[in-house]
Amino acid sequence: MAWVTAASAAALLGRLRERRPLVHHITNAVTINDVANVTLALGAAPVMAHAIEEVEEMAASAEALALNIGTLTAPVVEAMLRAGRRANASGTPVLLDPVGAGATTFRTAQARRLLSELRIACIRGNAGEIAALAGQSGTVRGVDASGRVEALDRVAAELARGTGAAVAATGPVDVLTDGARVCRLENGHPLLARITGSGCMATAAVAAFAAVERDALAAAAAGLLCFEIAAEVAAADARGPGTFRVALLDALAALDGPTIAGRARVRP
Amino acid sequence: MAWVTAASAAALLGRLRERRPLVHHITNAVTINDVANVTLALGAAPVMAHAIEEVEEMAASAEALALNIGTLTAPVVEAMLRAGRRANASGTPVLLDPVGAGATTFRTAQARRLLSELRIACIRGNAGEIAALAGQSGTVRGVDASGRVEALDRVAAELARGTGAAVAATGPVDVLTDGARVCRLENGHPLLARITGSGCMATAAVAAFAAVERDALAAAAAGLLCFEIAAEVAAADARGPGTFRVALLDALAALDGPTIAGRARVRP
Amino acid sequence: MAWVTAASAAALLGRLRERRPLVHHITNAVTINDVANVTLALGAAPVMAHAIEEVEEMAASAEALALNIGTLTAPVVEAMLRAGRRANASGTPVLLDPVGAGATTFRTAQARRLLSELRIACIRGNAGEIAALAGQSGTVRGVDASGRVEALDRVAAELARGTGAAVAATGPVDVLTDGARVCRLENGHPLLARITGSGCMATAAVAAFAAVERDALAAAAAGLLCFEIAAEVAAADARGPGTFRVALLDALAALDGPTIAGRARVRP
Repeated sequence: MAWVTAASAAALLGRLRERRPLVHHITNAVTINDVANVTLALGAAPVMAHAIEEVEEMAASAEALALNIGTLTAPVVEAMLRAGRRANASGTPVLLDPVGAGATTFRTAQARRLLSELRIACIRGNAGEIAALAGQSGTVRGVDASGRVEALDRVAAELARGTGAAVAATGPVDVLTDGARVCRLENGHPLLARITGSGCMATAAVAAFAAVERDALAAAAAGLLCFEIAAEVAAADARGPGTFRVALLDALAALDGPTIAGRARVRP
Repeated sequence: MAWVTAASAAALLGRLRERRPLVHHITNAVTINDVANVTLALGAAPVMAHAIEEVEEMAASAEALALNIGTLTAPVVEAMLRAGRRANASGTPVLLDPVGAGATTFRTAQARRLLSELRIACIRGNAGEIAALAGQSGTVRGVDASGRVEALDRVAAELARGTGAAVAATGPVDVLTDGARVCRLENGHPLLARITGSGCMATAAVAAFAAVERDALAAAAAGLLCFEIAAEVAAADARGPGTFRVALLDALAALDGPTIAGRARVRP
Repeated sequence: MAWVTAASAAALLGRLRERRPLVHHITNAVTINDVANVTLALGAAPVMAHAIEEVEEMAASAEALALNIGTLTAPVVEAMLRAGRRANASGTPVLLDPVGAGATTFRTAQARRLLSELRIACIRGNAGEIAALAGQSGTVRGVDASGRVEALDRVAAELARGTGAAVAATGPVDVLTDGARVCRLENGHPLLARITGSGCMATAAVAAFAAVERDALAAAAAGLLCFEIAAEVAAADARGPGTFRVALLDALAALDGPTIAGRARVRP
């Protein structure tokens, strides 16, 4: 069987709901509530903790650790490093969402520091963030969508090979690769760009799936597929960004195999 | 009249809406918005402030102070202690939500420190948190629901006698006690466990009621009764966790005496 | 043409959606998500960043900078000053929301410090906050609504002349003035007072409009008009504060010229 199909995503979702893994998030102040609610809606158990005194103990009890740099400050970088080392020591997968990498020197530098000091299982970002981490933002920004996707294939693969992480660059078309395997997901909805936290919530979905699947690329693909299909279902009922946000949680909680099978658009 | 009935809860809700008391929250980053909105929906006025420079002044002007350790850091512990001492000095009730006590050494230790250095009117937590504070988490965790409720009666009463606080241990069945009196509430809905912040919001309801009722156990029972009945009303309209969260605020704002009377399940 | 009309507000909204300006917010922990979502719903691009290491670089790339003191701490004051100086240096408008000025000595002092060290384009607050900044809270608080509006005209004009900022004092009737021009807006809905963050969201609307209109008073009037008209539209569908919050985002995203023209209540 291919490493990601509608059937494998549905199977992982079932495993996630059965095991209800604990996912430790060290995340930003903007979307911390959305991230917790998406994690719960998918069937996992979120715990949000960033105090330096407790992050190692919390990470030790979690099945996945997600690091999101959206409103990063220096003490939180230190907490991420401590939690990350503890997770690495026990083989717990560590996910990185490099929010705003490329926007300021500080964010780019701290994201790279996390990548160099920790073993990251998966990086989930948008095209600009992934390119910034690969040191090639100039080649990707400002180009049109199809051009961007072409460039992204190469840039994402380079970042994956350079870091050992699976890379998921999301956008109208998502590019996922570990440097060897590659696939594209064509699910999702334009309303995702009209609410804050879509990216953070997508990363939360990847983290929840990584907690029950050791193949980080397969986890990322299944998590994004489920999240983006739920977004399509939610958009069908939405009258704007407000109702869309609400319907998204409902759709994640109600997501089932037939819905995934009927909507999945995965291309190798 | 018994110390908690549907009628007494409705009367306190009326008093709350009439007086519109100011409730000072020092709370966590995940659910701070939910806590403020629940406080407003019930009819009280929330103020969220944790800067060490202003917490004493803010606590001095409030009718209740709620401390929630959900994403505690060292500076916030210090702010809680200062605000709490000021509230204690003027007889303002101080509520404690020991989120995650038992999950890390840091949280358990800080929750105990707040309990030992401050006079807490009421502790509102789940079974595991209450047991952790009582030093008996091993006896409660991992047991089934009915067994848990049996054990909780004793553990909650011990914690109440040891601290002088009313104790409200919430779950499928809530156990409330001050060491002398005890009651169980059987209201609520499983969807509460599918959204983040249910516990924090329940504590916000208790704090709002404590601002207008000096008997902390009676305030806790009335606040939880109103919150959990609103959850039942909300669940009737919800299509999942997203619509449930939204309907919960509507139901709290619309809650009235007949609805409370028709749904209250209080057992002495 | 008058400096604010339904037509000019609609024209600015069109410009905002076309240019999609970047608005940098340094804001509070309670409503940071709401502020980001309102900014997005209006058609602008929010970025939330408060780390001292990056605020100057972020402010340099933004078209407006909004400072909100809702949960202010000392490090964030420093970040606001750095970002504000950088914005001032490049002529980027800086907006101030003095949340809770007058409630504690710390907040009042820090709001005044921001006003004295930075060139603020517009202050958006409620009557009590505006009066506190003008040093006259005693004359405004506790008086009835019509009396309050009379007093506000004078107090707001004094604050505007003393600081050089446009002043928008919002409430049942908003008073906007730069010390020379003055107008009143009579739009809005009582449900705005039943949710947290109405004021912060109103400021976010003002900031988004200031990013595309150099006349800060005109931007404030247009932004508040659009926000409050959207609130009226949202309230028509709402069953309480929960559904109102959701519908508000939908209404902001769907707002159009005919709706503004049909509802605007602007008085010179």
